[in-house]
Parts: sequence; C-alpha cells; structure tokens
Amino acid sequence: MSKKTVVIPVGDVAGVGPEIAVKALAHPEVYEWCRPVLVGEKSVLERALRITELPQQLHRIETVEEAKDCPGVIDYFDLHNIQAEEIVFGKVQAKAGRAAFEFIEKSAELLKTGQADAIATTAINKEALKAAKIPYIGHTEILGDLLDTEDPMTMFQVRNLKVFFLTRHMSLRDAIDAVTEENVYRYILRCCAGLKNLGIGNPRIAVAGLNPHSGEHGLFGWEEVREIAPAVERAKKDGICVEGPVPADSVFHIALKGAYDGVISLYHDQGHIATKMVDFERTISVTIGMPCIRTSVDHGTAFDIAGKNLVSEVSMYEAIRLAAEYAVTYRGRC
Amino acid sequence: MSKKTVVIPVGDVAGVGPEIAVKALAHPEVYEWCRPVLVGEKSVLERALRITELPQQLHRIETVEEAKDCPGVIDYFDLHNIQAEEIVFGKVQAKAGRAAFEFIEKSAELLKTGQADAIATTAINKEALKAAKIPYIGHTEILGDLLDTEDPMTMFQVRNLKVFFLTRHMSLRDAIDAVTEENVYRYILRCCAGLKNLGIGNPRIAVAGLNPHSGEHGLFGWEEVREIAPAVERAKKDGICVEGPVPADSVFHIALKGAYDGVISLYHDQGHIATKMVDFERTISVTIGMPCIRTSVDHGTAFDIAGKNLVSEVSMYEAIRLAAEYAVTYRGRC
Repeated sequence: MSKKTVVIPVGDVAGVGPEIAVKALAHPEVYEWCRPVLVGEKSVLERALRITELPQQLHRIETVEEAKDCPGVIDYFDLHNIQAEEIVFGKVQAKAGRAAFEFIEKSAELLKTGQADAIATTAINKEALKAAKIPYIGHTEILGDLLDTEDPMTMFQVRNLKVFFLTRHMSLRDAIDAVTEENVYRYILRCCAGLKNLGIGNPRIAVAGLNPHSGEHGLFGWEEVREIAPAVERAKKDGICVEGPVPADSVFHIALKGAYDGVISLYHDQGHIATKMVDFERTISVTIGMPCIRTSVDHGTAFDIAGKNLVSEVSMYEAIRLAAEYAVTYRGRC
Repeated sequence: MSKKTVVIPVGDVAGVGPEIAVKALAHPEVYEWCRPVLVGEKSVLERALRITELPQQLHRIETVEEAKDCPGVIDYFDLHNIQAEEIVFGKVQAKAGRAAFEFIEKSAELLKTGQADAIATTAINKEALKAAKIPYIGHTEILGDLLDTEDPMTMFQVRNLKVFFLTRHMSLRDAIDAVTEENVYRYILRCCAGLKNLGIGNPRIAVAGLNPHSGEHGLFGWEEVREIAPAVERAKKDGICVEGPVPADSVFHIALKGAYDGVISLYHDQGHIATKMVDFERTISVTIGMPCIRTSVDHGTAFDIAGKNLVSEVSMYEAIRLAAEYAVTYRGRC
C-alpha cells in the first residue's frame, strides 16, 4: 500500500499555525504515516523554524511528485502571497486572512486533482477572513464549497471514541427542540453512512439520552420516550445496529471502552465535554462527506501565544495521524 | 493528629456492597488513612470473604474503641438483622432493604455520638427500600433526616476536580428554566460556603456556561448574558472569588489543571459527563452540609454481577480515601 499524501495549509500566519505545522513535522514517524506537504510561504516557514529552533530543511515543490518525503525535510508549496515581516503576531490582519484563504484554495486544488488524498488543517481566524472580505466563517464552509459538498458532517474523535452531533451551534433550548423522532432517525442513517465511509463495516451506533438517566421513563422529561426511542426503533428496522437512548453520563465511557463505533450526542457540549475530558489536546475534529477526508486541530489561532514557541503541536500531530489513517480507508462522500 | 474513624454500612446485601467493602479493606494503606469500621452482619461478611477469596479476619466490635484497627482485620458492628443464606444475590428483597436501612441507622448513630467522624456508603436499592416500606429513596435522604440536615449538597470529585450541581434530577428543559440570576447567585454562595467547610480557605469558583461557547454574546442563547453573568457579578461584589460563565467544554478541563477549586455545572449531565470521562470509577459523590462528611461510590448495587467477585472495589476504595481526607478538614454544616 503506497503512502497517502496529506496536505496541510498553514492557516493564519499571525497565529500559531506555521509553528504547529513545522513542530508536528519534526516527528519522523509522521513520514511513516503519510507524505506530508505544507501549503504556505517561504519567509513564514523560515520564521516558524527560527522561532521553534528546529533544524528542518525547507524544500519548495511545484507538484507533489517533487516531494522528497523524508524526515528532516519540509516539502511545501510556496504561494508567494505574503511576507513574514509584514505580519504582526497576535493581531487580526486582512493580509493574513487573505493568505490563509489562498492556502486552503491551493490545498483544495491538490485534493480535487488527486495530488493529495487528505487534508489536515491548522487554525484560521474568523475576523481576519472578514477583514479580507472572504465570505466564509471557517474551514468547513470554505472546503465544503470548494469541494462541492452541501452539508459536510463533523465528527469528533479522541482515541477510539467517535462522536457525532445532532446539533451544534444553537442555543441549548433550540437543541432540545431539534430532538425530534424525524431528526434523530435521519441523523442515525447519516452517521451510519458516515462511519461506513470511514471504513467501518457494520457500525454500532449509540444515541445519547437528553435528560438525566435518559429521563427515567418520563420522570425527568419525555424526549427519550417520545422521540429518541421511536427513532432508534425505526433505524433498527432498517437494519442499522443502533442502541439508545443510553444515559449520557455513561454512553461515552462505554463507547471509549469499545462497545460502540460512534455515539450521537444531541447537543454541542454533550459531545464536546465527553471528548475533551478524555484528552483535551488529542480531541480531533474530522469532517466527513466531502470527496476527501479532512481533520483539524480543535484549537484556534491562539493569538496570545503566537510566535513564542509556547504552543503544543500535539493536536496538529494527532490531526495528521488521523488524516493519514482515514486517507487509506475513506470511501468518499456519504 | 489522631486517625479519624470512617464508618461503612455495607448496603444492600443482595448486591455488591459487602464484596466491595471487604475488597477495599484488603488494601493495607486504608488503615493508614483512617480507622475503617463496617456496619453489617457476620454471615454476610463471611460470605463476602469467601466469594472474594480474601484472608482477612473478622473482628466483631460493640464500640469503636474495641477496634483492632490493623490491616488484615475487619472491625465490624454486627446487627444480627439478616442471614446470608436467606438472601439471593441480584434480587430485590424486602429483608435486604430493611437490613440496609438499619446499617445506615447504626452508622448515623455512631456519627451522632461522635464515635465515627465520616461515612463512606456502598450501594442500596430503591426498590428494596420500597419493598421494606422504608419511606426514603436513597442514602442522602435517609442520612439528611437522621442527621437533621434539611438540604444536603452533592459534590462530585475526581482527582482534584470538584463539581457542584445547580440542578440534578429534573428534565433538561426544567434545568434551563432554573438558570436564573437569583438561583445562580444563591448557589454560588452555597458552593463557596461548602468549599470553605471542606477546608479550602478562599475558594476559586467557576460557573459553567449553558449554551455552546457560552452563547457567544447572545448568538446561541441569552442565559449567559441575562442570568449567569449578572449572578457572577453580584457574587464578586460580595467578595467571592468566582468567574463565569466559562464555556462548558473547557471549564472542567481548566479546573482539573488546577485553576479552580470548584465548578458549578448547571445541569446533571454537564457535570456527570465531565467527571466520569476523567475517570469513571474514581468519580466519587461527596455530601456536604451534614454534621459529618459523607462520600459514596457512584455505582449501584450491580445486581447482575453480585456474588461473583467480578466487581471492582476502586470506587469504594476512593470513597474511603476521600472520607478520611475530608474527616480531617471538614468543619461541619454549611
């Protein structure tokens, strides 16, 4: 099996993106997992190496075939679109927002033309994108658009715990309202398809409960009885291996021990708390549904510590590892 | 400093209580932490030792002063109120419910008379209490009543992470409704008093957010802006060291790293997921507000594995450790 190529756009260069990219690539095993290639700019990467006091060589490439693919060498595409000295660390800057967008554009092109197999993203800044008049709020929206994907799906992974989100960026009240039989049923089908596309044959899925102890048969809320259980039954009739509602304070623990391939959390914090308390830095966001797999660090640009060699590369390292792993098994769109 | 006495009622004898009690006391260090004394019955404890294949000696006592307090010896009060052979493992039985209640009654008496300093409880069964016509649903209610405490307060602890609950056994919708400025403010005061009573001088408290990213200034819900932040400000004016709302997917992690002495979770699963994902078995429930500290395993009677030596004593061990620790610093009622 030949190695897959993982492309890494270095993100907002006023933030920690370039630092975590070069630090992650300082681990030789990354080159065993995959062929990592950065998309960035020369002076920015030189500065990142100076800051992090790393001895790697920069190797500019025009095509992935030119990559040396060797520990100690950083293969990178140079977009010549920004100069390190123009950019102050830790500030929202339109130029940095524009460059970050172009790094992603180039990465998408490599994915579309089959030169790269997967993408692991660092952090970009919403405000900087806005300042640069880029009409997107984040990676998922940009990549979804560039890779013609209407509704990409976010999964969190830490160790072997995989968590999906019925709802994310809405109030907890609205999230409760969204717990309907129809929504839960359709989402179970999507998660099942998503896990299959990650290469899991007959995925075992659990749906978390909404109320304490899954409501104890209506004692503390009726959503489990009226919405979740019927949705699970319908999905079971479709042949899906799904259980639930399983009380939220044990389902993630049980899944982590290996009983389920995926857990559906019903609201943002349910799944976020569960994964991040297992290992904050190693909680990776995986985007499914696009033609190629995408993973992402789950932290921001960390403007407060950018340029100071204070940032840990653990999350980036883990994002590259997962991207490489899924690049092998991923079957494309759900 | 003389050792404190921790009393352990062995719980519902059709469940795993007696097994975890004798297994926990097989660790010699328990006798360094405290003077542990069980409240149970001879044939029940003999059976537990047979099942667990442990070599400890049983030593019946009439007063705590008679305790040998020595590893390898289990000091216990024998209530002569049940016979092991009458009780089938894994079944709800009125006799077992009645005996479990009497073990707690005796333990409360030891606490009230100053013979014991703290209590670490195993598991009892709601249905068995009901079958025995005991008008309580759990330990907290029984002990609250026996120790004249109106409103005992539950705190979860795992490692150094301490979590309080603004609400617990109610639906998530009702829990959201309970997030009012007045409730949050008053609860901050209670938690502060509770932590002080545990021996923490000037406790640093954080209040978790309710909505994703604490609502992002109203983008995903207004409870943070309208209820939580004003409550925190009021408490600060009272001189309390409190922060919040802090996004729920990071506040517990930050506290675990040492930044806060206690976190107020707003609903049951928020704090339950956070603590149990750190270490499921070592998440201990601590009851504050009674004249003496009480800790408890956070699992049930585990009827499915009772009598089979399959249960882990880790939770019981940890509950005894914490009871012993807090027995030294606890200052009594909030």
